[in-house]
Amino acid sequence: MQLGLIGLGKMGFNMRSRLRDGGHEVIGFDPRPEVSDVASLEDLASALQAPRVVWVMVPSGPITDQTITELAGVLSEGDLVIDGGNSRYTEDKPHAELLAQKGIAFIDAGVSGGIWGLTEGYGLMVGGSDGDIARAMPIFDTLRPPGPVEDGFVHAGPVGAGHFAKMVHNGVEYALMTAYAEGYEMLAAEDLVKDPQAVYQAWTNGTVVRSWLQQLLAKALKEDPNLNEISGYTEDSGEGRWTVEEAIRLRVPVPGIAASLFARFLSRQDDSPTMKAVAALRNQFGGHAVKRVSESG
Amino acid sequence: MQLGLIGLGKMGFNMRSRLRDGGHEVIGFDPRPEVSDVASLEDLASALQAPRVVWVMVPSGPITDQTITELAGVLSEGDLVIDGGNSRYTEDKPHAELLAQKGIAFIDAGVSGGIWGLTEGYGLMVGGSDGDIARAMPIFDTLRPPGPVEDGFVHAGPVGAGHFAKMVHNGVEYALMTAYAEGYEMLAAEDLVKDPQAVYQAWTNGTVVRSWLQQLLAKALKEDPNLNEISGYTEDSGEGRWTVEEAIRLRVPVPGIAASLFARFLSRQDDSPTMKAVAALRNQFGGHAVKRVSESG
Amino acid sequence: MQLGLIGLGKMGFNMRSRLRDGGHEVIGFDPRPEVSDVASLEDLASALQAPRVVWVMVPSGPITDQTITELAGVLSEGDLVIDGGNSRYTEDKPHAELLAQKGIAFIDAGVSGGIWGLTEGYGLMVGGSDGDIARAMPIFDTLRPPGPVEDGFVHAGPVGAGHFAKMVHNGVEYALMTAYAEGYEMLAAEDLVKDPQAVYQAWTNGTVVRSWLQQLLAKALKEDPNLNEISGYTEDSGEGRWTVEEAIRLRVPVPGIAASLFARFLSRQDDSPTMKAVAALRNQFGGHAVKRVSESG
Amino acid sequence: MQLGLIGLGKMGFNMRSRLRDGGHEVIGFDPRPEVSDVASLEDLASALQAPRVVWVMVPSGPITDQTITELAGVLSEGDLVIDGGNSRYTEDKPHAELLAQKGIAFIDAGVSGGIWGLTEGYGLMVGGSDGDIARAMPIFDTLRPPGPVEDGFVHAGPVGAGHFAKMVHNGVEYALMTAYAEGYEMLAAEDLVKDPQAVYQAWTNGTVVRSWLQQLLAKALKEDPNLNEISGYTEDSGEGRWTVEEAIRLRVPVPGIAASLFARFLSRQDDSPTMKAVAALRNQFGGHAVKRVSESG
Repeated sequence: MQLGLIGLGKMGFNMRSRLRDGGHEVIGFDPRPEVSDVASLEDLASALQAPRVVWVMVPSGPITDQTITELAGVLSEGDLVIDGGNSRYTEDKPHAELLAQKGIAFIDAGVSGGIWGLTEGYGLMVGGSDGDIARAMPIFDTLRPPGPVEDGFVHAGPVGAGHFAKMVHNGVEYALMTAYAEGYEMLAAEDLVKDPQAVYQAWTNGTVVRSWLQQLLAKALKEDPNLNEISGYTEDSGEGRWTVEEAIRLRVPVPGIAASLFARFLSRQDDSPTMKAVAALRNQFGGHAVKRVSESG
Repeated sequence: MQLGLIGLGKMGFNMRSRLRDGGHEVIGFDPRPEVSDVASLEDLASALQAPRVVWVMVPSGPITDQTITELAGVLSEGDLVIDGGNSRYTEDKPHAELLAQKGIAFIDAGVSGGIWGLTEGYGLMVGGSDGDIARAMPIFDTLRPPGPVEDGFVHAGPVGAGHFAKMVHNGVEYALMTAYAEGYEMLAAEDLVKDPQAVYQAWTNGTVVRSWLQQLLAKALKEDPNLNEISGYTEDSGEGRWTVEEAIRLRVPVPGIAASLFARFLSRQDDSPTMKAVAALRNQFGGHAVKRVSESG
Repeated sequence: MQLGLIGLGKMGFNMRSRLRDGGHEVIGFDPRPEVSDVASLEDLASALQAPRVVWVMVPSGPITDQTITELAGVLSEGDLVIDGGNSRYTEDKPHAELLAQKGIAFIDAGVSGGIWGLTEGYGLMVGGSDGDIARAMPIFDTLRPPGPVEDGFVHAGPVGAGHFAKMVHNGVEYALMTAYAEGYEMLAAEDLVKDPQAVYQAWTNGTVVRSWLQQLLAKALKEDPNLNEISGYTEDSGEGRWTVEEAIRLRVPVPGIAASLFARFLSRQDDSPTMKAVAALRNQFGGHAVKRVSESG
Repeated sequence: MQLGLIGLGKMGFNMRSRLRDGGHEVIGFDPRPEVSDVASLEDLASALQAPRVVWVMVPSGPITDQTITELAGVLSEGDLVIDGGNSRYTEDKPHAELLAQKGIAFIDAGVSGGIWGLTEGYGLMVGGSDGDIARAMPIFDTLRPPGPVEDGFVHAGPVGAGHFAKMVHNGVEYALMTAYAEGYEMLAAEDLVKDPQAVYQAWTNGTVVRSWLQQLLAKALKEDPNLNEISGYTEDSGEGRWTVEEAIRLRVPVPGIAASLFARFLSRQDDSPTMKAVAALRNQFGGHAVKRVSESG
């Protein structure tokens, strides 16, 4: 079918390729002319036959807000907008309502798979009405991995449910990464273990802990066995923070996910103010030696 | 090749089957005559041709200690004992030294895969000398999953390294299970999400969080969508505790694994003494209402 | 000086007493006629001489919102409203702006001390302009504990800073309570220790861990040595949740405070969905025995 | 009474002063002649009248082991040894048994208070027999803070109970320090708060969180408002590690204490291997930018 696709970055670019390979007609728009098929959102709207389906794949927050607002201006009654970015699920209802004023339908779609989705397919979690989702199903069917539809795709609930599920997915992802990483640090710390990479490689098959992430860590360790080239400084993209915030709203204890989030915050601090205060306290009551800043390595 | 196999419980029984299917001659011993091939360890020793290879697959701790001590009595110089149970890695060196006094070699083997190992193969992490491991390799090759040897098998280092790697494997497993479980609780708590099982099913393909454990949780939720039949009371089998203890020895921060371990402890308490003390404190300073025991549901 | 005081609950009632003992003229309003000095907010406004100072001490959230909205109607230009409740600091600016439209000034005041404040004084953290705070200082001076003003009172910053400081205070309080409670559980679990209460009593003097909360726990344990009468079910009043949410906004890692908050959530669950999922997973891969619900004690 | 005191370091030196001020005859031994009253343990034994009481105040571990072994050689039946250092409680029973072979009694004494004990008195937690403790009571009475004996002193149980209680005390101390330090970091991160020190100063009186440690943090922040002079690198002296290990043995969940311990481990790492692995994983699946080591500031 025909699809407008806004945002041709790391994710959107690959998705256009996968959709075209799947026989769809994709007209992409991106502010960078070298990757864009049209010059503007207006051109995109003109190039698509009504009723249109437009997939938004831009950074969450203000840029998604602005894109959806502009789409409300250039699209028409009966069109359908799919937000496939990592928007917070609480933004979906306002976006849906804005578009509904013009008679435009809305689906929120959580998309997982990263750069591997191009070849392996993307895990999809979508929210919206049955009718809207049925309408976009040919697109979802091409994006999702081959195999039974329920493995790799879920209509999670009404508008918002797709991004909520994706948010939880990413929160879980944080905790999984921490789990494997803690295991790596222990293997690397113990002299008996000759080569942590070989252990991670062995875990890729037959073990209880095998997973796609686990394979990726084995691969990363093969490329850089002591991770010498990589700093522990780690960004977070929002979903981890949102997951803990929503857990608090829902009164769900999430010590594993929260620990993973806080570890990322900590990784970005040159020196931890918390630990400076702890060191200062030890100094006060115990006369314990503290490391003065001038002694820092 | 010929193998003596001591312990025909849930794991050993299946391993005997897989090894026999792989063409090995396995003589099994178990105190339960209905599953045992021989009547005693002495009979086992007599039935095997020297130099013998004997695999011990019994509960870790005193029973493994006793079995290895008895084997030191009935085996001969040049024989090889493999401890495939979940012994703490610190017990391996004493076991190896005990056997070495009789000229008997020792390998520690961490075995992962649970009841699925019978058909899919077992992930193996072994510790010992190159020569000893080469000698037992035909057995390892049959137990491990098919495919490249390095995916599913690792010679992790000298005696002790196999069980150390398996201990870390299980520590990581604890944290992975907690990660998926926290995600489940969040999905189940949010009204927007119609069916947490469907989300878990969708995660099995294409997503970043897909894994074998993740598939199992999808399967468990299919069988019992609200987990109504299962209590949260959860045992721990030792490796999780040991992992945190060894992390402390190695000064490795493991907040994710520790949180998972503590959650298990907590799941086995009728009421948390810690939280009783917190409630008592709130009552003291704030005159906050506390729930009296008589009000408990 | 003269003060209007709205809300004569556990805190407000005591504060009226302390202020009157300190020589102030306090006119209190409460919906319960048996404790109220006037019949309505209108009556309160009439009873006070302009320019008025009115202290609001009602539950945070909708009731505080409504009270401040109503005060905007009955007070006059030049009056001053102090919100002494546990409002989230983000609500202070909207409240200040609402009142400012009528020329009414606003101070946010975090008040700590619980039921003990009546006799010992209240710790105060306030936000607002220098002028407004100078104007209310006689009230603050009576409410705060005797001694140097900087011990027990702080002008933390502009509007919002008082409640922010109080929120952090309560977050820290959560973590302190957990720390003492974990220590109690360990002492109670170890057979060598004859009487955890005696240890807590001994800690009240000379030790590094001595504190007011620590004394209260010693007292609570004296009244009920095994805490048999108290359930671990523990409410949370909002500040703990807000502290973790604000920590996430500020990218501050707060593992201690978050662990305390999650422990409270958990204490209110009959059975943990997270642990049910962990138990279900163990059952899937290991054939581990799980506790069926029917077996629960 | 007369006391031999071995170890005149930071703690022992002050204790000698406090005991002498209290009217006791203290003969101190230390390898550093400039502070020692006698030249050797033999001289110490000769200088004391039998039956002797000797207080050992040396670093825990090998030095305490060696000191107690040597005392077993130079003391006589009927003498009493008190280990006031931070020995792990599991070492107390072996020490007691070693001395018992010579008819020498043993008490383990946990001593809290740091450099402030000299003037304020030391919090004492002791383990041993009623008779032995009665015998040493004059010493304990002088060391402990003035006031009721039960506030500042506890006979916690048989040999080992004193050091167990002290170990838990220090584990709690870790978590308290983290709680206050997290609060400091939040106050320092929020622009609304003008001066975190002033808030900490205000908390010293009237608030729920007031404590001795809290006062010390206010003092530390007064001396160095932004803690510019102090590195977050923080040692741990053993008790924190032991507390978590014993919690695991006792199956007591201690998320607060464990988080504090792990934070100290982390503070001593230049870059966290766990976070390097997390960053490597993000890079693998997402093509996320990672910070290369060469970019680190």
